[in-house]
Amino acid sequence: MKESATVKDTAAVIKHIEELGLKPHISEGEEKTIIGAIGDDRLIQKEQLLGLPGVDTVIPILKPYKLASREFKPDPTVVSVNGTKIGGDTLAVIAGPCAVESYEQVLEAAMCAKEAGARLLRGGAFKPRTSPYSFQGLGAEGLKILARVREEVGLPIVTECLSQDDVELVSEYADVIQVGARNMQNYAMLEKLGKQQRPILLKRGMMSTMEELLMSAEYILSNGNYGVILCERGIRTFEKLTRNTCDIAAIPALKHLSHLPVILDPSHATGERHLIPPVSMAGVAAGADGLIIEIHPNPDKALCDGYQSLHLDQFRDLMTQVGTIAKAVNRAI
Amino acid sequence: MKESATVKDTAAVIKHIEELGLKPHISEGEEKTIIGAIGDDRLIQKEQLLGLPGVDTVIPILKPYKLASREFKPDPTVVSVNGTKIGGDTLAVIAGPCAVESYEQVLEAAMCAKEAGARLLRGGAFKPRTSPYSFQGLGAEGLKILARVREEVGLPIVTECLSQDDVELVSEYADVIQVGARNMQNYAMLEKLGKQQRPILLKRGMMSTMEELLMSAEYILSNGNYGVILCERGIRTFEKLTRNTCDIAAIPALKHLSHLPVILDPSHATGERHLIPPVSMAGVAAGADGLIIEIHPNPDKALCDGYQSLHLDQFRDLMTQVGTIAKAVNRAI
Amino acid sequence: MKESATVKDTAAVIKHIEELGLKPHISEGEEKTIIGAIGDDRLIQKEQLLGLPGVDTVIPILKPYKLASREFKPDPTVVSVNGTKIGGDTLAVIAGPCAVESYEQVLEAAMCAKEAGARLLRGGAFKPRTSPYSFQGLGAEGLKILARVREEVGLPIVTECLSQDDVELVSEYADVIQVGARNMQNYAMLEKLGKQQRPILLKRGMMSTMEELLMSAEYILSNGNYGVILCERGIRTFEKLTRNTCDIAAIPALKHLSHLPVILDPSHATGERHLIPPVSMAGVAAGADGLIIEIHPNPDKALCDGYQSLHLDQFRDLMTQVGTIAKAVNRAI
Amino acid sequence: MKESATVKDTAAVIKHIEELGLKPHISEGEEKTIIGAIGDDRLIQKEQLLGLPGVDTVIPILKPYKLASREFKPDPTVVSVNGTKIGGDTLAVIAGPCAVESYEQVLEAAMCAKEAGARLLRGGAFKPRTSPYSFQGLGAEGLKILARVREEVGLPIVTECLSQDDVELVSEYADVIQVGARNMQNYAMLEKLGKQQRPILLKRGMMSTMEELLMSAEYILSNGNYGVILCERGIRTFEKLTRNTCDIAAIPALKHLSHLPVILDPSHATGERHLIPPVSMAGVAAGADGLIIEIHPNPDKALCDGYQSLHLDQFRDLMTQVGTIAKAVNRAI
Repeated sequence: MKESATVKDTAAVIKHIEELGLKPHISEGEEKTIIGAIGDDRLIQKEQLLGLPGVDTVIPILKPYKLASREFKPDPTVVSVNGTKIGGDTLAVIAGPCAVESYEQVLEAAMCAKEAGARLLRGGAFKPRTSPYSFQGLGAEGLKILARVREEVGLPIVTECLSQDDVELVSEYADVIQVGARNMQNYAMLEKLGKQQRPILLKRGMMSTMEELLMSAEYILSNGNYGVILCERGIRTFEKLTRNTCDIAAIPALKHLSHLPVILDPSHATGERHLIPPVSMAGVAAGADGLIIEIHPNPDKALCDGYQSLHLDQFRDLMTQVGTIAKAVNRAI
Repeated sequence: MKESATVKDTAAVIKHIEELGLKPHISEGEEKTIIGAIGDDRLIQKEQLLGLPGVDTVIPILKPYKLASREFKPDPTVVSVNGTKIGGDTLAVIAGPCAVESYEQVLEAAMCAKEAGARLLRGGAFKPRTSPYSFQGLGAEGLKILARVREEVGLPIVTECLSQDDVELVSEYADVIQVGARNMQNYAMLEKLGKQQRPILLKRGMMSTMEELLMSAEYILSNGNYGVILCERGIRTFEKLTRNTCDIAAIPALKHLSHLPVILDPSHATGERHLIPPVSMAGVAAGADGLIIEIHPNPDKALCDGYQSLHLDQFRDLMTQVGTIAKAVNRAI
Repeated sequence: MKESATVKDTAAVIKHIEELGLKPHISEGEEKTIIGAIGDDRLIQKEQLLGLPGVDTVIPILKPYKLASREFKPDPTVVSVNGTKIGGDTLAVIAGPCAVESYEQVLEAAMCAKEAGARLLRGGAFKPRTSPYSFQGLGAEGLKILARVREEVGLPIVTECLSQDDVELVSEYADVIQVGARNMQNYAMLEKLGKQQRPILLKRGMMSTMEELLMSAEYILSNGNYGVILCERGIRTFEKLTRNTCDIAAIPALKHLSHLPVILDPSHATGERHLIPPVSMAGVAAGADGLIIEIHPNPDKALCDGYQSLHLDQFRDLMTQVGTIAKAVNRAI
Repeated sequence: MKESATVKDTAAVIKHIEELGLKPHISEGEEKTIIGAIGDDRLIQKEQLLGLPGVDTVIPILKPYKLASREFKPDPTVVSVNGTKIGGDTLAVIAGPCAVESYEQVLEAAMCAKEAGARLLRGGAFKPRTSPYSFQGLGAEGLKILARVREEVGLPIVTECLSQDDVELVSEYADVIQVGARNMQNYAMLEKLGKQQRPILLKRGMMSTMEELLMSAEYILSNGNYGVILCERGIRTFEKLTRNTCDIAAIPALKHLSHLPVILDPSHATGERHLIPPVSMAGVAAGADGLIIEIHPNPDKALCDGYQSLHLDQFRDLMTQVGTIAKAVNRAI
C-alpha cells in the first residue's frame, strides 16, 4: 500500500482478496503496510488490484515460501518478547541448562545468565531423547520451576514443546516456544503453534536444507503467528570431530532470503565446550541476531548434554568475548 | 525361559520383575518364551532370577535398543497383517499411489497391484508436504476411499499418520500405519502408536542413522506394540543425480542387529523411474523382506511424486524381474 | 557413419575434423563406426559434415562428458584383458589381497580366487595410506610377486598406480591399472594413463559425484585410452555403522549415462565382512558388470584392511551366492 | 630439551635417535628445542633418553599425526614468506584472481589487493578442471606473469601445483605452493613437496575429515618441510544453496589440535559473492590466521569461477569490515 493509504483502503483490499478466495496476511511496517494474498495466483488480476485506492504496487513472490521471504517484507522482523527484542540492533543471548532438573539448578544458572548479560532463559521441561529409557524431563513440574525462576530473576523463558497435546500447556508458561530439530517437519504441531500468540524459536533440522527451514516457518506464519525466530544448530556431515557441522553461511544466507531474525546454537552445532566461544564469536560476526547457549552450575552432574554445557564462569568469559565482536559489528548486547 | 517352563513359571518371573520396579515385555517364540525387563539394570540380581523355576539364562543387553535387538529375540519377527505376512520366507510387495486422489484412481492402481502380485495397497490420505500451500491429501475422505477399495480388491491397506490427533482415526481404517521419514523422531506420536494394536511401518529419517531408527522402533515396542516393520528409503548425501542415496547395506545391517522385518522403498530412495527396477532387485538380493513402490494409472497427472511413480505396465514388468531374484534367494512372492 | 561407409569415407571424415582444428576419436562398433569430434563446437557446420560420403547423422553431445556418454556410443563397451572380458554377458569377479605381502600369501589367495571362479587377481604393490608411517606396500618387489603368481595361476593382474612417476613401471607389470578413490581427480596422472594402452579401473572418489567420475573417465578417454572400467566403492555420509555408504543406484545410473562397464567394490563400500555377501548380491542384481573383493588367507594377520578381507572359504561361499543371482539376471560367471 | 641444553647436547640426542633407527625432527622454539623421533616406538627406552645431558622430558604422542600435533610443538608455528608472516598476531589476507588470464588482469588485481591491505597475491597458472575440455590455465606462461607482477607490486605469490612433474617448476616461481582440495591425498606429490623449501598451503579435501587433513600435513612435515599452512575451504553436504558448507568450527578445532596456522577460503566455502564478507568476518572471529579470497577486475568475463570472485571495490569494502573484526580479536591486518 502507498504511505498515504487509509485504514479504509487497506480494509477494501483485504475484502477484495477474500472475495477472490485467497487468504490475506497483513504486515504493518513503520512506513507502509504490505498485504499478502495466499492462494492460487491465477485468481489475481494485477490491473484490478492496482485500480483499488491506496494500492502502490503488486509483486508476485516466486519463492516457494511467501510470508517468510524478503520479497514479501523487505524490513527485518524484530520479535518482541515482553519487551525484550530479538532482531534489530541488539544481540539477544539466551542461556540456561539443557534440562530443568531442580529449582536450585535453574535459579543458579538464571542468576548467572542475567548477571553476564543474557536476555532470556532457556531450559527444557520436555526433552526429546533418542532413547525411550533416558531422562525425559520433569514435564509440567519443570514448567512451574521455570515460571518461578522467571518471577525471581526477571528473564523471559524459552522452552521446548514436543507434542501437539502440550501446545496449550507450554504456551501457558513459556514466553518463547521452541521447536526442536527433530520436530522441524512435524507439520501438525507447526500448524497448531501457528495459531498461538507466543513467538516460536524454530530450529533447523539436522538433515534439513535452508529452504525447508523457511518452508516450515511458512507453516507457522501462514496460520497467523508472525513471531518466528530461525535457529541454525549444525547439520550432519561425515566429520566426526564435532557433534554437528555449524553451517555458518546459513546465518547471512537466511537473513538474505528472509526478514525473520536468525540466531545460532553453538552448543549443539559443535558439541565441544572449547569450541563454543570461537563459534559464538563467528556467529555474531556473521550477523546472527542472537545465541542460545547451554550452561549448567555443575556440568559433570547434568542429566543431559553435560559435556557441551559451559560452566558458569566460562559463560561469563564468553559474554565478554562475544561483546567485543558485537561492538565491532555495531550491536548492543 | 526353559522350553519346559510352565505358564505359572512365566507369571512368577513377570511378577518378580514388576516387584523390582521394572517393566516386563514378553516375546513368545515357537520354542521358548523370552521375558524382557526394562529399567535400571542395577535393580536386577542375576542369581535371584536364575533361582526362579523355569528360568534358563539371564542376558544383559548392551545395545541402547533392547526389545528391537537380536540379542533380545534371536528369531526373526514375522508381522501378520490380516493373514498377510511381512518377514519370513515370502516377499511382501506393497504398491499403490503416492496420494489418494479419487476412488477410480485407487481402484485401478489396486487392481493392477493385486494382479501383478502385490500383497498390500499403499496410498496417502494425509500427505506431509514441505509447503503449506501444496495439496495436503484428502484426509478422512481418502481413508474412506482406501477402505472401499480394500473391500472390493481384497488387499490390506498401508497409509500414513501425520499427527497425534489422527492416530485413532487412521487406526480405524488402516491395516498398517506408516510413520514417514519426517516423523521418525516425533516421539510423542511414536508413543501413541505404541499403544495401538496396528502394525507400524517405520521409515528411516532421511538423515537418521540406523541406530536412531532402531531407537525410534524401541519407542513403539516399549509401549507394547511389537508389530514394527523397518523401512530404508534413502538418505541425504551430496550426490544430486538421485533424489536420495539408497543405503543398500542398511538392509542386511538392520537385519543383523534386529529381529524386525526390513523393507525397501526404491521410489523415494532413487526418485527416478528407470532406477526403480534395478534397485528393487538389489534390495531383494540384499535380503529385504519387502518393497514399497509408488504406482499410478497416469503418473503425468499425479498430484504428488508423479515423476517417480511407475506406470502400471512398468510395475508388472518390475514384478517379473523382482520375482526372478526372489526365487534365486528362495523367497516366495 | 552409415553401415555402408568405406574405410576411405571414414578417413575423409577424420581428415575433415582435423582440418577444423578438432580432435577425432574413433569408436568401431559391430555394425557401425562412430567418429567423435572434440573441441569448440562452433567450428562444426553440420550440413558440411552431412555432405561427406558415408556420413549417416551428426549428433551434438550436450553432456559435459562426451566420449564417456551413451549418446556418443550407444552400445556397451566390453573391455578385454588378455581375453578376459569385463562388460557384456559375463560377470567378472576380481579377488585378491588388499596389499601384496609375500609370494606365498598372494599365491594362496590367487589359487583360491581362481578355483572359486574369479577372473582376475587384485593386489596392491603401492598402497595409499592416510598415515606416512603406515605400511606403504612392497613397491616394485610387489609387482614382481604379482607377475610371478600370474605366471603360475594364470589370472590377469589388477594393481594400483599411485604416482605419475610409476605409470610406466606399473604398466609393465599390470594387466589392468587401478586408480584409487583418492586419486580420482589427480588429473595429471589420469592424462598420463590416457596415453597408456592398459585398461584402467577407475574408482569413484569417496567425495565425488557420478558426473565427476564420468568427467575423470573423460580425461583418460580423451587422451586415447578407451579401456576404462568404472568402480563404485561407497561414498561418505553421516552413517557410522558402515565404513562408507554403498551407492547401489550408481550402478544402473552410470550404465544409463555411459557405455563403460561398471563394477562394485563391496569390501570398501561396507567395511564389514558380514555385509560383503549381501551387498555383492545386490550389486549383481542391480546390473554390475563385476565385483572387486578383498580376500586373504589369514585376515587377522593382514598388513592392511584385514577386518574387511574375506577368509578364503567365505569367498567360496560368496561366489556360490553371487552365482545364483548372476544366473537370475542371465549372466555367466 | 632443557632451556640450558647446549648445541652439543642436542646433537647427541639426534645421534642417539638415529642410532636407534628412528628419524629425528628438530623444532627450535623461542625458549626451547623439541626433538621428534619418528618410527617404531618400541625402539625407544625412555629412561635411556632421560639419562642424556640436556634432556628435559620424553613425551609419547598418541595422535596419529605426530609432527603436526600440539603435543609435539605447543607454540603456534608462524610461517614466514619473504618476511610476510602467516600465523601469530597479524592476519594475512591473500587475494587475487582464480586463474591467471593476462598480465594486465593480474596487475590490476594485485594493485587493488595490495592497496586494500592484502599481504600475498594468489593466482592459478595451472587449474584443476573437472572437464578436460575446460580452460586449464596458462601454465608456465602464467607463472611468468605472476613473477613479473610480483616484481612490480611487491606481493609474494601463492600458486597451485597440480602435478608431481611441475613441483620444481612451480617452486622456482612461487613463494607459497598451494595444494588444492582434489590433491589433498595425492601422497606422491605431498612427499615431493615435503622435500622442497617453499611453504605449502594445504587445502582440505571437500569431503576429508580434519584428521585426514592433519595426516596429509604430516606427509609434508615428515619429509622435512615444516612450513605448512592449513586451509578450510568448505566441505560437501546435502545443502545446495551454497557451493560447499563452510566448516567454521574446523578453524578453532584445527588450531587446538595442531600448531600449524589455519586460514579460511570463503570464496570456495560459499560460492556466493554476497556471502563472502560475512563468512570472512566469521572466520577471523573464530581465530583464522588468514583468508584467501578470489578477486577479479571484471568477474563477469573471468575464465574461471567468475560468479564467486569479488569486484575490486567489493574487496576494498570487505577489507574494512574484516579489519574491524581483526581489531576486536587483537590482530593486526
